[in-house]
This record gives sequence, C-alpha cells and structure tokens, in this order.
Amino acid sequence: MTVRALRYEGKKTVVLTEIAKPDPKEDEVRIKVKAVSICGSDVNGYKGSNSLRIAPLVMGHEFSGEIDCCGSKAKIFRPGMRVTANPNLCCGVCSNCKKGDFNLCDQKVVLGTSVGGRNIQGAMADYICVKEDNIIPLDDQLSFEEGAILEPAAVSLHGIKRGGDLEGKRISVIGAGPIGLLTIMLTKNMGVRQIISLDLVEKRLLFAKKCGASDMINLQVQNLSAVKTLTDQEGVDVVFDCVGNEKSMEQAINMVKNGGKIIVIGMAAEKINFPVKKFVAHEFQLFGSYQYKEEMEEVMALAAKKRIDLNSIITSVLPLDRGKDAFERLCSPEPEDAKIVLRP
Amino acid sequence: MTVRALRYEGKKTVVLTEIAKPDPKEDEVRIKVKAVSICGSDVNGYKGSNSLRIAPLVMGHEFSGEIDCCGSKAKIFRPGMRVTANPNLCCGVCSNCKKGDFNLCDQKVVLGTSVGGRNIQGAMADYICVKEDNIIPLDDQLSFEEGAILEPAAVSLHGIKRGGDLEGKRISVIGAGPIGLLTIMLTKNMGVRQIISLDLVEKRLLFAKKCGASDMINLQVQNLSAVKTLTDQEGVDVVFDCVGNEKSMEQAINMVKNGGKIIVIGMAAEKINFPVKKFVAHEFQLFGSYQYKEEMEEVMALAAKKRIDLNSIITSVLPLDRGKDAFERLCSPEPEDAKIVLRP
Repeated sequence: MTVRALRYEGKKTVVLTEIAKPDPKEDEVRIKVKAVSICGSDVNGYKGSNSLRIAPLVMGHEFSGEIDCCGSKAKIFRPGMRVTANPNLCCGVCSNCKKGDFNLCDQKVVLGTSVGGRNIQGAMADYICVKEDNIIPLDDQLSFEEGAILEPAAVSLHGIKRGGDLEGKRISVIGAGPIGLLTIMLTKNMGVRQIISLDLVEKRLLFAKKCGASDMINLQVQNLSAVKTLTDQEGVDVVFDCVGNEKSMEQAINMVKNGGKIIVIGMAAEKINFPVKKFVAHEFQLFGSYQYKEEMEEVMALAAKKRIDLNSIITSVLPLDRGKDAFERLCSPEPEDAKIVLRP
Repeated sequence: MTVRALRYEGKKTVVLTEIAKPDPKEDEVRIKVKAVSICGSDVNGYKGSNSLRIAPLVMGHEFSGEIDCCGSKAKIFRPGMRVTANPNLCCGVCSNCKKGDFNLCDQKVVLGTSVGGRNIQGAMADYICVKEDNIIPLDDQLSFEEGAILEPAAVSLHGIKRGGDLEGKRISVIGAGPIGLLTIMLTKNMGVRQIISLDLVEKRLLFAKKCGASDMINLQVQNLSAVKTLTDQEGVDVVFDCVGNEKSMEQAINMVKNGGKIIVIGMAAEKINFPVKKFVAHEFQLFGSYQYKEEMEEVMALAAKKRIDLNSIITSVLPLDRGKDAFERLCSPEPEDAKIVLRP
C-alpha cells in the first residue's frame, strides 16, 4: 500500500509522490501527520545549499499528528492519541547522551534530514514512524498547527537559556525569521528591559513588533548606530544571532556592550572571518546554541497557558500538494511569510 | 637632568638613550625602576608587528621599583617604598569604569604602549612617573624581579577566572610562553584533574612541566589525537588559548569536548577564519579575556604565601644596556628563554 509524500529530488525540486506506507518497528509508533511546518534549513535544502539535505529525501521535522498504530513493544502511546515528536534520534549511550546532553550526541540522526550521513524519512508525508521514546503528547489546548511550531520554539528557548538571566537586560535579536520571532515572543515575558529586532525586510519587522519587539531596525535603511541611540550609546547586554553568518556576527560584535554575550542560534555559514583580537579586547562572550533538550515540553506548557501564541507566526496553512508553492514563497528574497504549515 | 631609557625606534631597533628625567604631576609618584620584564607584546612591537607600539616609544609595563619622589597631592605613598603598578590608566568615568570593569575602559591609555592612540613612557628606563591611584605596594616577601612578573601573572589569573570553577576539570593550555606558563602555575593548585600543555618548542614544554603541567604535547612531532588519547577520547573541559591566532583556535575547537569552554587570552592575530557552524553545532563557548581587575593584588598574595613561585619562569636577568640582546633572544623562532627581566 502506498501513501503520499512530498519528496525533495534535487535543487528547486519537490514532488508529491507515492511511497510505501511505513511500518513501525517494534519500538516505534506510526503517526498520521496532521501538520508539518517548513524550517529555514528545509528551505536551504530546497535551494540545494544545505549539506544536511541530500536528495532524494522526504523532509519535515516540525510536525504533529495522531497515532495510527504502535509497534509491539510500545509501552505508553496508543492509537488515536494526539502527539508531536522530538525529531532527534540520539544514540543514548555516548558520554553526551549519558550526561543528558542529547542535543550534542555525535551519533545522532534526525527525522527528515541527512544528519549523521543517513537520510531519515520526515513528516512531509501522510505517515511517519518514530521511536516511542521521542513521542511527546500534544496538550489538548493546542491545535496541530501549534504542535508543529513547538520544535522551532524549543530551538529559540534553548538559545534564550544560554543567555542566562535576562531580567532587566537589553537584548537584540538579529533576523526576524521564525527563530528570531519565537525568540522575541519567548523573551517578552522574561522581564527584559528592551528587545531590539533587526532584519532587512520590513514585513518581517512588523511580525517582530507583533511578537513583542520594543524597537525595530531595518538594516536596509538604518545602520547600527540606531542600536547605540536606543541604548544610551552603551549597546545591548545580549545579542541573539538567529542568522549565523559573517555579516550577522559583525553586527553582533558592533552592537553588544563590552563584556556582553552573543548567542548564535542560526547556522547560515560554515566559516566566517572573525575579528578575534577585538573579541578578546572587549571580553565578549560567544555561545553556540544547538537544538534543545527538554524545551519542547516547556514551550508546550507556555503555549497551553496562553503565555505565548504560536499561531501568531503562522502566516499560511496549505495542503501538502501545494508544497512546491510553499517552498517557492519562502525562497523569495523578501518573503511575505513567517511560517508556512502544510497539512497532509 | 637626563636619565637612561631603552627606546624603541623602529623595526628591530631599540637604543639606550638619554631622556629628560620625568617630573611627577601632582597626583603622580616617581619610581626608580628596579626591574622591568619584557612582554610578548613588546617583542611583537620590536618586530614591528604590533600596532600598539609606535616608535619612538620607551616600552615596559611589567615592572617594580622604589618610590623616588611624590607629587604634591600624593596621599599614601612616600619615597623609599617598594612598589609595583597597574600600568592601565583608565578614565574612571565611563560606564565600564563605573561598574569596576576598568580593563574594558574605552578611553584607557597604558604605560609603555600606544594604546588609545597616545604613547606613554614605560618602565624600560631609570625612572617612570605613575598616577598614585595605580601604585600597588610590593610585599616584603617578593623580590623586585618577582614584582615585575605580577602583571603577566594577573593576566593569566583573570583568564583562569573566566573559565569558571575548574575543580576536577581537564584543562589544556595552548602556548607555553610566559602567559601559558603562569596559567599552568596558577591552575595547578585549583584542584584540576589534568593540565595538558601544548607548544612547538621542546624547551618551553620543559618549563611547562616545571610549572605543573601533567602532560606535554609537542605539536611539531605529535598531533591533536594525543589530547584525545590523554582524555579517554573525550577532549578537555576548558582550553586556555594563550596564543590567539587561527591555528590555535582550530586546535582549541578540535580538543575541547562538546559544550566546552575556550578562553582566549592571547592576541596574536587581528582576524581569523572561524568555523562558526561547527562552533554552534557543538555548543562551544568562547570567552575573551583582557588584562585584569584586582588580580595583581591576588597573585601577589599567592606569591607571598609561596603558593606560586614567579622566579621559576625568569630565565635571565640582564642590565638595561643589554636590552637589545634580550629582545633579539626573544625574537628567536625557538626561544630558549621564558621571561627576561631587565634591571635599569
């Protein structure tokens, strides 16, 4: 029996195709996918510029759905349950996993990606099989669409924690794509003094405002002196770099105060030219932030309590057969969309 | 009246010359210099490759001596007192100074350097005038030579503190020049599990052993897999990069464990090629460490209690008129010396 899947088949090519209906292994459950959102890394994959998306691959690691059937050794979950999943499949035995640093497991593979050198089918399909250990029950308060957004929200929350106590701090967020917007939404309630959002696209800065940014800077028409003006010439305490390339690092270093922190969540560039002497002489601090640990559960609790509104970054919900359109829209140099959710 | 000074007059040129005997301003004291050591940054100045040493300049910011006379408003210090000094002359009024982050003052000038765009006479001379605020009494237990070494030791101690609690940790120290050796000497008593010293010069690694390194790696004959072998394949918890160039950063990133810390104290390079994606994906942490705050007093207390032996890195004591020889020896690609102290 076959089911539908949106398959990435090479640069700028995704095709709605038929694949064999996946069978759960004994420690897996099968999920009827109800919502899957498109990550920036998927868009880079579609563009052919992400080494962790090797065609042919069914992408999709931000999703939710309903359990359809369970492997023989599944203990907790049962058909009919509404769920989401942590898409990172760790080894569980390396020194990182043993310490609970599952996000740093060197043996990991990830649903819907080529991470670890193995293509694992993702959720841009009618069905997906996932290890029961990775399944997370979806709170009744949340829609399937919100359930899909928990994964990128967890990425943002993990990065925020790397910044330490933000109470009373001035922060800036470079990039107002989904990760940047979620970072703004989540920090808004943490007692920060100021949230400055920076992007090149006016429409995205309007989303940033809606998510809770106190100040917006369009770097196509303003320069970084605007940050100094907004911060009594001091700069910000913490920068969240949700882009991760040479330009954003340069911006971060020029807007953070002496001794301040830069948290890099974005992973746009492999290598950059880095002003190490300036970095040292100003005692800057740089933290990489990668994926998350327990943060999917934490953002779910916040969303269920209406502390954050994950719907506010969803700009389109489209059927799976409109996947090609969705990718094309997100490839635009000035995308009108924040997050697009596909419904198989 | 004139006194002697060793003046840097351009690439590879230092000349023993006569300068006017400096007169203390009302808030200054004049010190008869008894010992002044040569910093790696001075050696780079001598080579013509340090933008913060602009000829003509009397260098020397690591020194000690005896107070010779005092300005009219000097309150505490009196002629005849044995002293050293913090060579960093801060503005005292900027937001960094107000927070006590004197090392991050943007208006600072530094004795014996061109920092801040102004050449300030240093201690490679018979006499130097210093603001009384910057004078530190020299403990009776310490020789003038040890007094000169307090400044670089403070640089190391400040960097060590940036690494957080080191108890039970595996650390590595890249570079076994004076800052690296002092880092080893100071961390030895902090309950660390292992101190791995890395350098290209065998002689320096022998100094490292003497200072307390548990393992030495000569990178001319061994590669970084030696670090993995020494650490159960895990890598170290904290790297102290006492070099600060592209090669040392690459080494640091390849020997630190996932989630680990890299403290950069060395400032050899302006800009480097930096593997940002790898940095993010392993959640590394990078801290710049610049100068020090109260650490000169702290290392003095440790030296007075014989917890550290600053003499152990002094390999030569030469008269001021042998300054040219001293700089030439330190320029050697494989220097036999750790620290050379000049005695005016």
